Amino acid sequence: MRMYDLIMKKRNGGALSQEEIRYMVNSYTAGEIPDYQMSAMMMAIYFNGMTEEETLSLTMAMAESGDTLDLSGIAGVKVDKHSTGGVGDKTSLALTPMVAACGVKVAKMSGRGLGHTGGTIDKLESFPGFSTEIEIDAFERNVNEIGISIMGQTKDLAPADKKLYALRDVTATVDQISLIASSIMSKKLASGADAIVLDVKTGSGAFMKTLTDSVALAEEMTRIGNGAGRKTIAVISDMDQPLGFAVGNILEVQEAIATLRGEGPQDFTQLCLCLGSYMLVAAGKAEDEKQAEKMLKEVIENGKALEKLAEFVKAQGGDPSYVYQPQKFETARVQREIPAPQAGYIQKIVCDEIGICSLILGGGRETKESTIDLSVGLILHKKVGDKVEKGESLATIYANDEGKCEQATERFLAAYTITNVKKETEPLIKKVILPSGWNER
Amino acid sequence: MRMYDLIMKKRNGGALSQEEIRYMVNSYTAGEIPDYQMSAMMMAIYFNGMTEEETLSLTMAMAESGDTLDLSGIAGVKVDKHSTGGVGDKTSLALTPMVAACGVKVAKMSGRGLGHTGGTIDKLESFPGFSTEIEIDAFERNVNEIGISIMGQTKDLAPADKKLYALRDVTATVDQISLIASSIMSKKLASGADAIVLDVKTGSGAFMKTLTDSVALAEEMTRIGNGAGRKTIAVISDMDQPLGFAVGNILEVQEAIATLRGEGPQDFTQLCLCLGSYMLVAAGKAEDEKQAEKMLKEVIENGKALEKLAEFVKAQGGDPSYVYQPQKFETARVQREIPAPQAGYIQKIVCDEIGICSLILGGGRETKESTIDLSVGLILHKKVGDKVEKGESLATIYANDEGKCEQATERFLAAYTITNVKKETEPLIKKVILPSGWNER
Repeated sequence: MRMYDLIMKKRNGGALSQEEIRYMVNSYTAGEIPDYQMSAMMMAIYFNGMTEEETLSLTMAMAESGDTLDLSGIAGVKVDKHSTGGVGDKTSLALTPMVAACGVKVAKMSGRGLGHTGGTIDKLESFPGFSTEIEIDAFERNVNEIGISIMGQTKDLAPADKKLYALRDVTATVDQISLIASSIMSKKLASGADAIVLDVKTGSGAFMKTLTDSVALAEEMTRIGNGAGRKTIAVISDMDQPLGFAVGNILEVQEAIATLRGEGPQDFTQLCLCLGSYMLVAAGKAEDEKQAEKMLKEVIENGKALEKLAEFVKAQGGDPSYVYQPQKFETARVQREIPAPQAGYIQKIVCDEIGICSLILGGGRETKESTIDLSVGLILHKKVGDKVEKGESLATIYANDEGKCEQATERFLAAYTITNVKKETEPLIKKVILPSGWNER
Repeated sequence: MRMYDLIMKKRNGGALSQEEIRYMVNSYTAGEIPDYQMSAMMMAIYFNGMTEEETLSLTMAMAESGDTLDLSGIAGVKVDKHSTGGVGDKTSLALTPMVAACGVKVAKMSGRGLGHTGGTIDKLESFPGFSTEIEIDAFERNVNEIGISIMGQTKDLAPADKKLYALRDVTATVDQISLIASSIMSKKLASGADAIVLDVKTGSGAFMKTLTDSVALAEEMTRIGNGAGRKTIAVISDMDQPLGFAVGNILEVQEAIATLRGEGPQDFTQLCLCLGSYMLVAAGKAEDEKQAEKMLKEVIENGKALEKLAEFVKAQGGDPSYVYQPQKFETARVQREIPAPQAGYIQKIVCDEIGICSLILGGGRETKESTIDLSVGLILHKKVGDKVEKGESLATIYANDEGKCEQATERFLAAYTITNVKKETEPLIKKVILPSGWNER
């Protein structure tokens, strides 16, 4: 087999066989196919796409290119959850204790934040002592004993994807739906869960800006997951404005804790209940989504979800007292209100710009090597559809640097559109994609 | 400027500016842009094409990426001729002495053969002692004194094209019209001639198999040439069967000599007269093509063209006695006839297969490093439209190896289609593309 012939085949609109894709992925990972051939292939795929079979083959080949997690030592159905990333997206922090408290085993690998979106690991590290750098034995034990563990991605998880993504990143071949879907799903498949619930964001703060693109990505990913024999559900949710009110690591942890006490923002709570109910049903812990939602509300009300978070934090070396006294977290020195420049209704928030405000304050990474300030960020007071008086606070900025605070304020104000017309709010959940036969259980 | 942005722009259907193309070509040649970005760009160009302006910019940037020949030391209008390559294409051998005998200055760079097509330099080296590895001073002197010189391409002529072509060759991005045209024309422009006559072949023995593609390539090349201020004419000629009867280095030299004596094959003679007449007019040596053709016929009849070949061979170290006694060339040991397996008319010849027969016999290069046997080849006796009796010879094979002779014979027979239906022959010259204003001189 020659890579040249495979490029030519794809360039001319043909479909690569499973064997050809496996050869390509393995040889590339082994350094036997040069980058310049692979980048030509990626560009040909950008233009000619991939069939469902090709996409599944690519995903499987990448998933099997390195270590794959064997979760068979953990009893029961293991459910994973993945978000495509957004602003103020602290979902894993609240959701995983909620479902674990209902008896679902959560064995999750998470990543750090990059650019305008945050990452679960950074947020968890707000708890003093908390570490996701744990051995696989401890990971399994924690899942078995307390029902939840989150670790950083091991180095050799889907190395083909890592190498390929780095190449796509510098050759303008990132934004192709089959390539995006296979990249995400290869890591999910390698992580070994039995069922996967995908939180696909859509809107100005998301990777996918339009609903059409988000649905296409969600469909591609669920096809791959179900094609690979993992029960896969996708929930498409709004990211045209930040999720909840808090943006910034510690601020988001505090909001997640509030949510586990039943005092969280309405939209964020709704999303956790929605994703959680599919996780419960997928794990066989509930008959249907309605029953599942009831169970989730119960563990919030009876404090079991909060307790689960404390157990989880403690098991991974963190100080659990912060779970019960979230005011102990040290937030940033400077706290400043952003007054509304005019009265009216919030018409629009350019969502990724709010993520960039947090980035400017030091709360996010510009490059993989950046260090971040966990204490900074913003608490929004007004979201789309809200009425505001002139001079009323739109948000509180948490900063450790006056200059950065000013810069962020300026950027923040440019992201908000206030008009005289009342804006109807969009539904949070845009669409749910279920595996075939889901409702015939 | 970042190569990433240029790839993205081209991928999204945009046109690159002259400045952007120059940056890309120069940085790539200097090794500052990696192969993997350039191959992604080439694939994006494959799919989205290039505008006329982009193609001209690319050609100019590649032409100026290394040495450019300054022919100002040579008096008069310098005319170059280029063939896109074919089987039995010995045109330069006969044409250049013809036009030089008419007073046109020919300062030409030629290449060696590769694959199923031959190269002028290999053929010229059939003359014992002949060398194209001459210094630029000798080159200029020869052109000034005898009106003709042919040298091998200098190492640093359009190095950007050399590097880019090597990359395209392994990334399935060769067959894109703007890239092919700019590759050829960059070397022509760097070679410094004032006017260029292009012999664009079309058919099964050519790089371009269909007339539509050949016309498109010819138009692209003439646009570039005229856009760069060089008077450029393209003649599109048939390559659905070999040109003339001889295929193989020494055999083709003998046929070219016969043509200069007025005893050459009708098709080959016609092509030389056609190309030559445009060269004469472009150089201002004739008023129009009709007058030019008359002049060319004259130098054949009065022996001046043959004399010019002898002068030229002598000036570059070759033995000119072979020009007058071509039987002195040592042809291959084994000479075998290929009898027709049935009676009928020659319907079709798969032309590139005849080139491959010569390659099999040792007369061509499989890779750039191959050494070749100048003495082998074939003399066709029947071409398309000819009547043949069963057992009559279709061709004579010249070989130095019995096994290869058999292999070539088998391949030869498979390339010939003989039926009972008389086939009308196609015209040799398919189309001529003239610069605007050509007929208003």
